[in-house]
Amino acid sequence: MSVHPAPIERLIDALASLPRIGRGSAEVIAYHLINSAAEEAGALAGAISEAKEKVRLCSVCGALTEVDPCRTCSDPKRDRTTVCVVELPRDIPPIEKSGSYRGLYHVLMGRIAPLDGVGPDAIRARELIERVRKGKVKEVIFALNPNVEGDATSLYLKKLLTPLKVRMTLLARGVSRGTEIQFSPSGVIAEALENRREV
Amino acid sequence: MSVHPAPIERLIDALASLPRIGRGSAEVIAYHLINSAAEEAGALAGAISEAKEKVRLCSVCGALTEVDPCRTCSDPKRDRTTVCVVELPRDIPPIEKSGSYRGLYHVLMGRIAPLDGVGPDAIRARELIERVRKGKVKEVIFALNPNVEGDATSLYLKKLLTPLKVRMTLLARGVSRGTEIQFSPSGVIAEALENRREV
Repeated sequence: MSVHPAPIERLIDALASLPRIGRGSAEVIAYHLINSAAEEAGALAGAISEAKEKVRLCSVCGALTEVDPCRTCSDPKRDRTTVCVVELPRDIPPIEKSGSYRGLYHVLMGRIAPLDGVGPDAIRARELIERVRKGKVKEVIFALNPNVEGDATSLYLKKLLTPLKVRMTLLARGVSRGTEIQFSPSGVIAEALENRREV
Repeated sequence: MSVHPAPIERLIDALASLPRIGRGSAEVIAYHLINSAAEEAGALAGAISEAKEKVRLCSVCGALTEVDPCRTCSDPKRDRTTVCVVELPRDIPPIEKSGSYRGLYHVLMGRIAPLDGVGPDAIRARELIERVRKGKVKEVIFALNPNVEGDATSLYLKKLLTPLKVRMTLLARGVSRGTEIQFSPSGVIAEALENRREV
């Protein structure tokens, strides 16, 4: 028999199925929600439903948005000659937070991963070609995850885009600011050495 | 301007207000929920509402329950001569999980905390006296949090219960199984020495 009343057990199960929440934290959060004012728990339940209902994909770039096209795509202050290619919508906020990018985005909705059965047709590559072909895009920045699959996807897109004579760049690779050489994996050190620059 | 669409920002705010969830995790969870099947997000929203709606306090012991009296209070196999006193409903599951307790519970709904303005009348002390007076209770186990306020509350309850000639016990104090002497706070070592026993 469970040590929790059934509705609490179901709430704990639902919470524990989320990323970053272990069973122990799920229990703490469940009891917190039960104990909290009805408004607080209602606000969370409502925020989940509202986000699922109102948020959709931008028909231009594929970002999550509550208006279509998204605020970035329709912002006259953004630089329309640069498109930053990311794997998923969740990759956009960290780039925005960097404060170093004023161009547009293109979300692939994945990356090419033959081992997972994800081929080139499963990502929004054709849409990227169309945007570059039709628009005034001068530079495409590949901001895919720095791993084998991300790199393979960047190379594949490079092949597709080469005939369009657009500038293509990749996020710099090296040791990450704030990390320590002592604890950096050898692959990171290797890339940092390979890409070393004049001081 | 926020880097997230407004409904996602609201969801992140609601998630980040929960215990054990920092802003970074709230972002990961929000994007996970948006990305997940409608059923999964709906299940979580539903589980929150259902738990808030169906779970109430047991009129006998004060535990959280979906039936009144709670399953523990109405279980004929539980030992009705022993009552374990805890601060909050959330303290019951860890005791049940220990597998070492087969008696009943009494939830105080807090502890005496003069600095927070919580006096003796704010906890369910009178209800405990009544239960002991009316019932066949032979032992009351104080399982309050092992700190100044928990101890003060146990002492206060002891005074109230003394005239009723019931056995009163306190959870053992000492070094916790699985911890290391090296990292144990001096107060813990002091209590473990004080309560040392013959091998």
